[in-house]
Amino acid sequence: MVWSAETAMPSITQGLFGRLRREAGAEWEAYIDHPFVRGLADGTLEPERFRRYLVQDYLYLLQYARCYALAIYKSDTLEGMRTASGIVAGLLLGELTIHVSYCAQWGLDEAALQAEPQSLELLAYSGFLLDRAQAGDLLDLMVVLSACLVGYGEIGSRIAADPATRRDGNPYYDWIQTYSGAAYHGLVRDGLARLESLGATRGAADRFPLLLRDFRTAVRLETAFWDAGSR
Amino acid sequence: MVWSAETAMPSITQGLFGRLRREAGAEWEAYIDHPFVRGLADGTLEPERFRRYLVQDYLYLLQYARCYALAIYKSDTLEGMRTASGIVAGLLLGELTIHVSYCAQWGLDEAALQAEPQSLELLAYSGFLLDRAQAGDLLDLMVVLSACLVGYGEIGSRIAADPATRRDGNPYYDWIQTYSGAAYHGLVRDGLARLESLGATRGAADRFPLLLRDFRTAVRLETAFWDAGSR
Amino acid sequence: MVWSAETAMPSITQGLFGRLRREAGAEWEAYIDHPFVRGLADGTLEPERFRRYLVQDYLYLLQYARCYALAIYKSDTLEGMRTASGIVAGLLLGELTIHVSYCAQWGLDEAALQAEPQSLELLAYSGFLLDRAQAGDLLDLMVVLSACLVGYGEIGSRIAADPATRRDGNPYYDWIQTYSGAAYHGLVRDGLARLESLGATRGAADRFPLLLRDFRTAVRLETAFWDAGSR
Amino acid sequence: MVWSAETAMPSITQGLFGRLRREAGAEWEAYIDHPFVRGLADGTLEPERFRRYLVQDYLYLLQYARCYALAIYKSDTLEGMRTASGIVAGLLLGELTIHVSYCAQWGLDEAALQAEPQSLELLAYSGFLLDRAQAGDLLDLMVVLSACLVGYGEIGSRIAADPATRRDGNPYYDWIQTYSGAAYHGLVRDGLARLESLGATRGAADRFPLLLRDFRTAVRLETAFWDAGSR
Repeated sequence: MVWSAETAMPSITQGLFGRLRREAGAEWEAYIDHPFVRGLADGTLEPERFRRYLVQDYLYLLQYARCYALAIYKSDTLEGMRTASGIVAGLLLGELTIHVSYCAQWGLDEAALQAEPQSLELLAYSGFLLDRAQAGDLLDLMVVLSACLVGYGEIGSRIAADPATRRDGNPYYDWIQTYSGAAYHGLVRDGLARLESLGATRGAADRFPLLLRDFRTAVRLETAFWDAGSR
Repeated sequence: MVWSAETAMPSITQGLFGRLRREAGAEWEAYIDHPFVRGLADGTLEPERFRRYLVQDYLYLLQYARCYALAIYKSDTLEGMRTASGIVAGLLLGELTIHVSYCAQWGLDEAALQAEPQSLELLAYSGFLLDRAQAGDLLDLMVVLSACLVGYGEIGSRIAADPATRRDGNPYYDWIQTYSGAAYHGLVRDGLARLESLGATRGAADRFPLLLRDFRTAVRLETAFWDAGSR
Repeated sequence: MVWSAETAMPSITQGLFGRLRREAGAEWEAYIDHPFVRGLADGTLEPERFRRYLVQDYLYLLQYARCYALAIYKSDTLEGMRTASGIVAGLLLGELTIHVSYCAQWGLDEAALQAEPQSLELLAYSGFLLDRAQAGDLLDLMVVLSACLVGYGEIGSRIAADPATRRDGNPYYDWIQTYSGAAYHGLVRDGLARLESLGATRGAADRFPLLLRDFRTAVRLETAFWDAGSR
Repeated sequence: MVWSAETAMPSITQGLFGRLRREAGAEWEAYIDHPFVRGLADGTLEPERFRRYLVQDYLYLLQYARCYALAIYKSDTLEGMRTASGIVAGLLLGELTIHVSYCAQWGLDEAALQAEPQSLELLAYSGFLLDRAQAGDLLDLMVVLSACLVGYGEIGSRIAADPATRRDGNPYYDWIQTYSGAAYHGLVRDGLARLESLGATRGAADRFPLLLRDFRTAVRLETAFWDAGSR
């Protein structure tokens, strides 16, 4: 496959995030090029497994919103508070509503989504994010959140650019379009710009080993999240 | 003065909040019927002191938004998260913008508001609220936040109903209208309804002595906030 | 087996904890009478699996100490702060040292213990405990911590009383003695007394449904912790 | 006065703390060479004011212990957790007991100490410390805590070295000896060594402007704490 992050998404290969991604190496690849993702690309993923993923992804959005609520609380500037507040409101109203509509197409209604318990994988991932959010500062939080934000963008972009990806009749093509689309990639770009600027004022260079340690755990837990349905 | 909470604002005399307000007794009165408030009512408050109050009130709104960000994080239900998120967004965009415009009428621009350090009184109040927010649960948080929300409504309602209040040529009449107006009193009613319902599921009856202890401290710190400019 | 909690450990069948344990029902049984536990009792557990458990249990103690550090911070009384501080110091000095010595008997040195990453099951469990610790109040925290404290005591007591338990030549007999011993059961009794008293002042009766929801999750995660080595 | 920090306490003039202290400049001087402190040195401070200080200092120790409990929770290493745990235990058992005995000499019993409400100055200071503790990372916390730890050592050392300080018949000479003594100065040295090492791994150089902002606020609040009794 000819897709290259350097060409297609140069911003994810540069600066603080670029360094984290590079050093996460094989772990990052395992997350981005996971069998679950390949199953989305060629349409062979079992629908039941995708449904289980959708349910957990709904529950994940709620925990992700809680993490961003802590970002409001931990921001040092009014602008930072407003941005984080906009993201929380966007998640809880916009994205959650879209997710619910999308789930409805897969036969899952909101009551069913809410009734489901968090999987072990989700508990591990959201527990880790929330712990880093509270125990660390805003930079610790933004670094662990970046694995999800950027990873989904890279996955969407790679799959969409791959000629082998099945377009016609692929039940997951909507999903692919979401994460390869301009709207989502605008979010990625904005998030990376904020991370870079935060890293500069909050000492990312000297803190790199600790930031990398937590980033790798987040990546490992994203991979476990893909694995979840396979047991 | 013939104003009575029982008649004018029955909801603040009932349920959990009614009990807190009643037991706070003289401390609550000292906050509601403070010389600063009387100076607003009859227009005799020194403008310079009002300006200092406006600056600190701006800085307070930022800390209040941080408290509500923790309410998103601490909510047990999607509905609770959405409500708290709406309040944070409303504070950081709507109310803060209105406050800035209002301050501009008093000759204070936003840069000046942001440049000012928090007063000792504000540090004490916001530090206390944030500590209760993190150390306690959502009920502890909502109880301490209620002193501000409801108190300003009671103050507005009392002053506006008082025939002795100066209307013509009172430079503070806008302020009085804000806190006696239907929009603000709708917020009070909604907040009290949520507090009551939260109190029921989170054991307010058995926790009353501890809740009252913190509520009294919040009331005492509101009073200190009025006092601030007088030193 | 004739062991009965009502006779052998009456305190765990009474009050707030008794109600939580009863309502957790089959989930509690699945945790207490888990195949891993039976393997300890009859000595048939694979040593390698026990070693993996010991490593994760070491890492768990560190997270457990972090939870108790939050209990110091969240305590309303000097006595509560002192008790929690004593427990943290006991964990980080006493129990951790004993654990390290015990692990050494199983061929695991401390460097190896520290080098190991947290398993998915541990991340899920400790992330959940820490989240409840920060998002809730001291009662929310103590309820979720009680599943571990009391469960290990019940397991120890049951196994030790069971005539079928292998004593001679059972490599796990030390472990059984620890959790059936008077020292550990003193900790259980003290912890339950504090939980009961905390529940009274912090509204456990009205909060029971929410407390039970979190307690069940803790019990489910204890069970997952036993399961961990079996994959 | 010939006392110079460079000669008498070189460690407080070097590294991260040295830079914070230097840049805090006049604010640091106002705290260290405060009229309250001079009143201790020459024995002219009104005893009643000292008693009010002792009460608030007792209440401060409890809040300081809560901050250090968060340091246990926020530590990245077992050694860091153990050190912080030792400090919390030392505060809640050792130092608090010593403080209570000392207060008894001044006619204050423990019940009286506990019955007193926190002053506005203490609420502002402890609220600020606890907020930085939760909103920031361990470095943010240790920087704001250093103002108290080191400042008292510098005050003690300066006064004790000053020939003008009254020794005979000075009712405050015990206090001076505590903070100029080897035991306390050992704590200062250890704390500074930990701060320096933490600063290196957590990016103090790049974060300096934000760390200085918070350090100055802590220094300002120490000064306000001395002022407290004078109103």
